[in-house]
Amino acid sequence: MDQTTSQTPATEQTEMHPSRWGDPERVTPLPDAARGLIEMVFGLQDRPALAEVTVPASGLDSALVAELAGLLGSDHVLLDDATRRLRTRGKSTPDLLRQRSGDLDDAPDAVVRPGNHEEVAAVLTWAVQHHVAVVPFGGGTSVTGGLVARRDGFAGLISLDLIRMKRLLEVDHTSMTATLEPGLRGPEAEALLAAEGLTLGHYPQSFEYATIGGFAATRSSGQSSAGYGRFDALVVGLRVATPRGEVSLGSSPANAAGPDLRQLFLGSEGAFGVITAVTVRVRRLPAQKIYEGWHWASFVEGAAAMRTLAQAGMLPTVIRLSDESETAINLARPSEIGAESSGGCMMITGYEGEPEAVAAKRAAVTSVLAGLGGKPLGEEPGQAWAHGRFDAPYLRDSLLDVGVLAETLETAAFWSNIDDLYAGVKGALEASLGDGAIVLCHISHVYETGCSLYFTVAQKAAEDALGQWLPAKAAASDAITKVGATITHHHAVGTDHKPWLTAEIGELGASILRAVKADLDPTGILNPGVLIP
Amino acid sequence: MDQTTSQTPATEQTEMHPSRWGDPERVTPLPDAARGLIEMVFGLQDRPALAEVTVPASGLDSALVAELAGLLGSDHVLLDDATRRLRTRGKSTPDLLRQRSGDLDDAPDAVVRPGNHEEVAAVLTWAVQHHVAVVPFGGGTSVTGGLVARRDGFAGLISLDLIRMKRLLEVDHTSMTATLEPGLRGPEAEALLAAEGLTLGHYPQSFEYATIGGFAATRSSGQSSAGYGRFDALVVGLRVATPRGEVSLGSSPANAAGPDLRQLFLGSEGAFGVITAVTVRVRRLPAQKIYEGWHWASFVEGAAAMRTLAQAGMLPTVIRLSDESETAINLARPSEIGAESSGGCMMITGYEGEPEAVAAKRAAVTSVLAGLGGKPLGEEPGQAWAHGRFDAPYLRDSLLDVGVLAETLETAAFWSNIDDLYAGVKGALEASLGDGAIVLCHISHVYETGCSLYFTVAQKAAEDALGQWLPAKAAASDAITKVGATITHHHAVGTDHKPWLTAEIGELGASILRAVKADLDPTGILNPGVLIP
Repeated sequence: MDQTTSQTPATEQTEMHPSRWGDPERVTPLPDAARGLIEMVFGLQDRPALAEVTVPASGLDSALVAELAGLLGSDHVLLDDATRRLRTRGKSTPDLLRQRSGDLDDAPDAVVRPGNHEEVAAVLTWAVQHHVAVVPFGGGTSVTGGLVARRDGFAGLISLDLIRMKRLLEVDHTSMTATLEPGLRGPEAEALLAAEGLTLGHYPQSFEYATIGGFAATRSSGQSSAGYGRFDALVVGLRVATPRGEVSLGSSPANAAGPDLRQLFLGSEGAFGVITAVTVRVRRLPAQKIYEGWHWASFVEGAAAMRTLAQAGMLPTVIRLSDESETAINLARPSEIGAESSGGCMMITGYEGEPEAVAAKRAAVTSVLAGLGGKPLGEEPGQAWAHGRFDAPYLRDSLLDVGVLAETLETAAFWSNIDDLYAGVKGALEASLGDGAIVLCHISHVYETGCSLYFTVAQKAAEDALGQWLPAKAAASDAITKVGATITHHHAVGTDHKPWLTAEIGELGASILRAVKADLDPTGILNPGVLIP
Repeated sequence: MDQTTSQTPATEQTEMHPSRWGDPERVTPLPDAARGLIEMVFGLQDRPALAEVTVPASGLDSALVAELAGLLGSDHVLLDDATRRLRTRGKSTPDLLRQRSGDLDDAPDAVVRPGNHEEVAAVLTWAVQHHVAVVPFGGGTSVTGGLVARRDGFAGLISLDLIRMKRLLEVDHTSMTATLEPGLRGPEAEALLAAEGLTLGHYPQSFEYATIGGFAATRSSGQSSAGYGRFDALVVGLRVATPRGEVSLGSSPANAAGPDLRQLFLGSEGAFGVITAVTVRVRRLPAQKIYEGWHWASFVEGAAAMRTLAQAGMLPTVIRLSDESETAINLARPSEIGAESSGGCMMITGYEGEPEAVAAKRAAVTSVLAGLGGKPLGEEPGQAWAHGRFDAPYLRDSLLDVGVLAETLETAAFWSNIDDLYAGVKGALEASLGDGAIVLCHISHVYETGCSLYFTVAQKAAEDALGQWLPAKAAASDAITKVGATITHHHAVGTDHKPWLTAEIGELGASILRAVKADLDPTGILNPGVLIP
């Protein structure tokens, strides 16, 4: 069989800005047109992040640090302020607000960088022995407080940084699978696979920074998941280091050998173990990618068209639909704000693959959408979407700089529940954030039986922006739970969604998670306080 | 939303023969042609099942029986020999051999028939209180010892028969989901759905007798699963009664709200709880069904063609491929036996759906298969396959009657592992069963990354046929484990596969199952000895 094994050494990677999204070099002020628009809607405030912040001193005993250095080498045990600041929290708006205000209370005592499974296992053994809390760290892109662990009762808290584990361990061209280490960021994984003529096809908005391990640990879903599948559907095998030893799963594509334990580690958010290798289904690199826009008279009509495609087994690779408000904002120029929008809704469809297959799928989808009242807008809107598809988090930082509170949240439900979910969440956010709040929504992922709703919120930031947002998030979460939808479609539970998890999975569901946690991590060192109710 | 709620009362159903497969009315001797063939290969022995057998007396205390009658009504607590005999074991060849020899040691002390979730829960509470073992019973079609629980240390063992729970609880035409009770047999579920214009599309060989609850509890896969999906992929929601209370899951098609606990109950084989409702994705009833045959020069070439289709995203609704031996046997006439077979391999492809979609898919698949060297054989072989698709278990009984040991087993692996798996299992079976053994194989299910292998074995029965088969089964299981494949693709673990489960999921995987079991069923009353290592 034509299996190959290749390895790529770790490379120095661009670190994210400590209190903003993404590459510090790409930090830019708002473009003038947007700035004018923002000023008209919210007014402008100057709300810069504190430039100088104090990182709490490392509380880790020097003898323990020496032990860690003995395990990993002293180069891979870092206590300096800059590194610890970079491994503090994730990138939710609350995380950013805390960072911007100089609150670094959650900084780890040390950042450790194991180079392979065995070193991860050694760190866990050490952590159990000394009762040190361990926060696995991949891309640091959590937006649900997934990196904010409890430290009370522990001898310290370390960030277990997977930055050195970036190898493509194996490619199986016959089975079309690849085994990847967890620290590979999206573009790094794609580059290694592209050299083999392959792709994973997983493109969440966090793609540029999020990692393979994080995709698995959080059940990530990407913008092309209609075509390639959610990340949890791509995974066929996992290797996990736990405090009690190794778990290695993946005998076959699917089987009946009891419960599927892979699905227990997918979404386990570092609370059950540290994922040290992921075997994923891969596809051939697409020869062609076409993205285009469609116009719908209403969100309801566009959503119905998506449902028709999904239930006919005809989904394109990408399909998204903005509601009337999001469509208006995305297309808006300052002169148009305040005018009654009768603009309808924008849908993006995308096709990736061999030209012949793309042409056939595109023709079939076009026929259905046109028949249902969609108006084709050509490739320009699709290209514009594709060009900016990873940029929204940068915009959020620029908004925070000028005193606009901006955040997103997402959920999913069955089709028959979507109208109630949309109205409930939108209403809850508007009521909590008050007059002038902007609540936008798009359908980001589509299934035969339902879809996800992704909300974006903006409001003039109050003096206490955190105190302004948290009740709105709680109100939205209550509204989601009330209609029986999921608290999160693709952003995981972390600490932020934990208060609502039991409502979704029940008291016994929560009990099962605690039982598995107690079995694999009996002293509770792994990401304490995250996920498990 | 156009949801409807409908209910269908339980109907009297045909019970299976106690020591054979299926409808007692359909028991027939071997047809003359087959009889001649068998005589030539194995000789004929007269090995009838014992007509008169003794069912052990019920050991359940009469006060306990009275309590059960109080919970369910005395009509639904059955202690008679005939009913208890019908709920003894499943339908593996070892199960049948034991039944045929008059061994009914595993007979339950009572058969209880709760009518709804609350009554199931009440029985479990009662069983915990009195420490009585409970074996959930759906269709009784287990072929892995899934109904053979331990009873040592318990005050008794009852069969919890779901025969009265046959309602279609809800149909959601918008979301294309249906909620079914666990006791519905395949044809009953399809009839209820057909009245709504819908289908589940789940057709395992056990279809006529197996139940919805059993499909879920064992991760069943059907002959049309390439098109409709494995049963575990059809499930979007579950309701489960456990000794500690109810678990209800299914907020959304997919989500990131922690591990997917649905996937923990799928495949749990009654060891974690009793599934009392299953919400499944449904499809519109297909307007057209076409099955046809293809000829391949070799198993390897046919398998490669299947892989090509799967990895191109072009699988038909049904696709199966017999190896050279199975093809020869299926087509054989007595005069041909012993002649060198140069017959190649038979593939069956099937297409179900709207005529336009069927035509398009069929044309595309035909083009690929013809391009890879397949020779179309038209619809006759496909119709023959479809006609007899549920009949093989009847043939097994007729073979046992004439002294031929016959059994099946199945596994799955990634494509790059299939050659080793095929050779390893075939070799192990042939070595164990000795000269004259016939080992046939087909690929029954296909995925992008791998496929399943389904073996059929026949040999002249020894005096101790059970003692002849068990070492062969063990040798095959060892061979499966040795190459890292799965011990079962779609027949579950039961008691027969349990010795090999830990090799597949590891010591910690087994520990997780025990931890979940201990959490949900702390006194261990549910199917003791089944599944959990």
